[in-house]
Amino acid sequence: VAGRGEFELIARIRRWVEAEHARDARGSSAGVAAAGTASEIVAAIGDDAALLRPPRGWDLVLTCDAQVEGRHFRREWMTPRQMGARAAEVNLSDIAAMGGVPIAALVSLGVPRDLTLPALRGIYAGLRRALGAHGAQVIGGNVTCARQLFVDVTLVGRVESGRALLRAGARPGDVVFVTGAPGRAAAGLAALRAGSAKGCAALQRCHTAPRARVAVGRFLVENSIASAAIDVSDGVGGDLAHICEASGVAIVLDETALPVDRGLARLARACGCDPIDWVTGPSDDYELLFTTRRARVDLALAMGASLGLPVTPIGRVLEGKPEVRLRRRTGALEKVAGGWDHLRGGDRGRG
Amino acid sequence: VAGRGEFELIARIRRWVEAEHARDARGSSAGVAAAGTASEIVAAIGDDAALLRPPRGWDLVLTCDAQVEGRHFRREWMTPRQMGARAAEVNLSDIAAMGGVPIAALVSLGVPRDLTLPALRGIYAGLRRALGAHGAQVIGGNVTCARQLFVDVTLVGRVESGRALLRAGARPGDVVFVTGAPGRAAAGLAALRAGSAKGCAALQRCHTAPRARVAVGRFLVENSIASAAIDVSDGVGGDLAHICEASGVAIVLDETALPVDRGLARLARACGCDPIDWVTGPSDDYELLFTTRRARVDLALAMGASLGLPVTPIGRVLEGKPEVRLRRRTGALEKVAGGWDHLRGGDRGRG
Repeated sequence: VAGRGEFELIARIRRWVEAEHARDARGSSAGVAAAGTASEIVAAIGDDAALLRPPRGWDLVLTCDAQVEGRHFRREWMTPRQMGARAAEVNLSDIAAMGGVPIAALVSLGVPRDLTLPALRGIYAGLRRALGAHGAQVIGGNVTCARQLFVDVTLVGRVESGRALLRAGARPGDVVFVTGAPGRAAAGLAALRAGSAKGCAALQRCHTAPRARVAVGRFLVENSIASAAIDVSDGVGGDLAHICEASGVAIVLDETALPVDRGLARLARACGCDPIDWVTGPSDDYELLFTTRRARVDLALAMGASLGLPVTPIGRVLEGKPEVRLRRRTGALEKVAGGWDHLRGGDRGRG
Repeated sequence: VAGRGEFELIARIRRWVEAEHARDARGSSAGVAAAGTASEIVAAIGDDAALLRPPRGWDLVLTCDAQVEGRHFRREWMTPRQMGARAAEVNLSDIAAMGGVPIAALVSLGVPRDLTLPALRGIYAGLRRALGAHGAQVIGGNVTCARQLFVDVTLVGRVESGRALLRAGARPGDVVFVTGAPGRAAAGLAALRAGSAKGCAALQRCHTAPRARVAVGRFLVENSIASAAIDVSDGVGGDLAHICEASGVAIVLDETALPVDRGLARLARACGCDPIDWVTGPSDDYELLFTTRRARVDLALAMGASLGLPVTPIGRVLEGKPEVRLRRRTGALEKVAGGWDHLRGGDRGRG
């Protein structure tokens, strides 16, 4: 983008965003309800700020997360589209963890001078595609030069008033569930770092192209299934620890119950490491973790069938010190390590 | 912050933010109505996302702007408090330009390893102070390592439904107003770059410690004064050009009417340059520009007296090509240059 003016870039970005919205409006994909309807988004890009008019009876859900080059991704591992999509998905995942409907995003972009115009366009295409899959759209943002590429997304959603899924609702006796097979992003990242793509493409995609569980969050809210919820942005152990802290409870996971992806198990064998370390340890899979009262367990299991994805009971909520432990096959009880640390150990992109 | 963990920093930030809110609640400063009341902010920091429940009859106003080290500020020119405050003010200014009441902010922070913990605390103190002056507070965000310090703020406000001040409402015959004395930030920046603080402290503060005109925006909305509005984040010429584009009108400024700050005039004489270049050229003063119908001109003038700040009619809206021209004392009509370009020429912090 070297030599391009800010206003020129903003004008281009506006055209990209609006052209894609127009295309969506003409031939919208089946099965996706547009959340950000024309009447809800009063004004988008083009003024000092955007205007929203959310319907009555809903609370707004707001989150923001920045993806920084070398920190959260490497340009050589991902296409610009994937970078944009990832920046959207990590935020969609936070809205999902609250049970919200995504509506609109504001995007702050820091672009190095060597970023090409097609790459910039790719980032927006990825953002738009990921948001558009849930009926949400880009309504504002800004672009500035920076030495390191960063994509900071603020995402606004809504949830029926008082119905948001919080971390604080878990009670002793509740059952702990997880969607999908966590740890795959960590395994995929290990494969990327080792430079061996052989047989690991699916795992690598978990790191490069994660998908937020928005439909799960909505199902949990609409059917009053979850007592607490969080997304796996740090790792099963680290994120469940947040539920323990917020709810004042302990959690014990059952090793025999943990869903272990086959590819992950294969890679672990090849590396000579314990697959359970990937499943419970630092990994940002953007799956959902939630707890349910025992009376709602059947509903949670039925949700899996209804949405066509694995939903697995992996442990129990107990009284006690707020920490996460793992009961091994052997019967031994181990403390589970914390999650990603994006400042200390967590420089995933740096290899 | 080197060696500090992400969760430790987040916990600290949460304590800083919540401690300051508690202090505000105990001894709130007179004359400032808290916009983000407890009932409006349902949940702030501490879950996957924040929850807002705005009152009925209001639209939400959303904006985001990132401040990047070396781009928008230099660490050696500003204290951490000023950096934080500036990041808040540039966003407050966008809400002001829409006529909104600021409610809540989400803050994305990219911190280099050499940033100290007291500096980080200073940034949050500055953010909190600037937001708190308008009853708004930090409700969420994230922190990550970055080679360049950046502070990206998303600010949410509200405005009575359908009453937001847009850029598109100017009509031929309208009068153009500006608050304060624009150009001072550009002059202050020139003084900072030249390294001469002598007699320029007030001008330099316009760059290092700008203040958004939130009360002006509210006054304009509550008294239906403005037909269009924008904040001076690029420069009088550049920002009025946005009004011209959006409204499909021309604007002619009158040199003899432009408010010229005395310190700015003195510095211009010392530098041998035309003070009008600073007044109309690239400068981010965060003053407000607005247009009014002729019948509302007296109200606009009365607003100045009421709020205790200069509010000056500086030109007229005309039919014609959407561009901004300046009628010189001599009668000559000149095209006014555009505003800041944050990607090309606008690397203010780089000197």
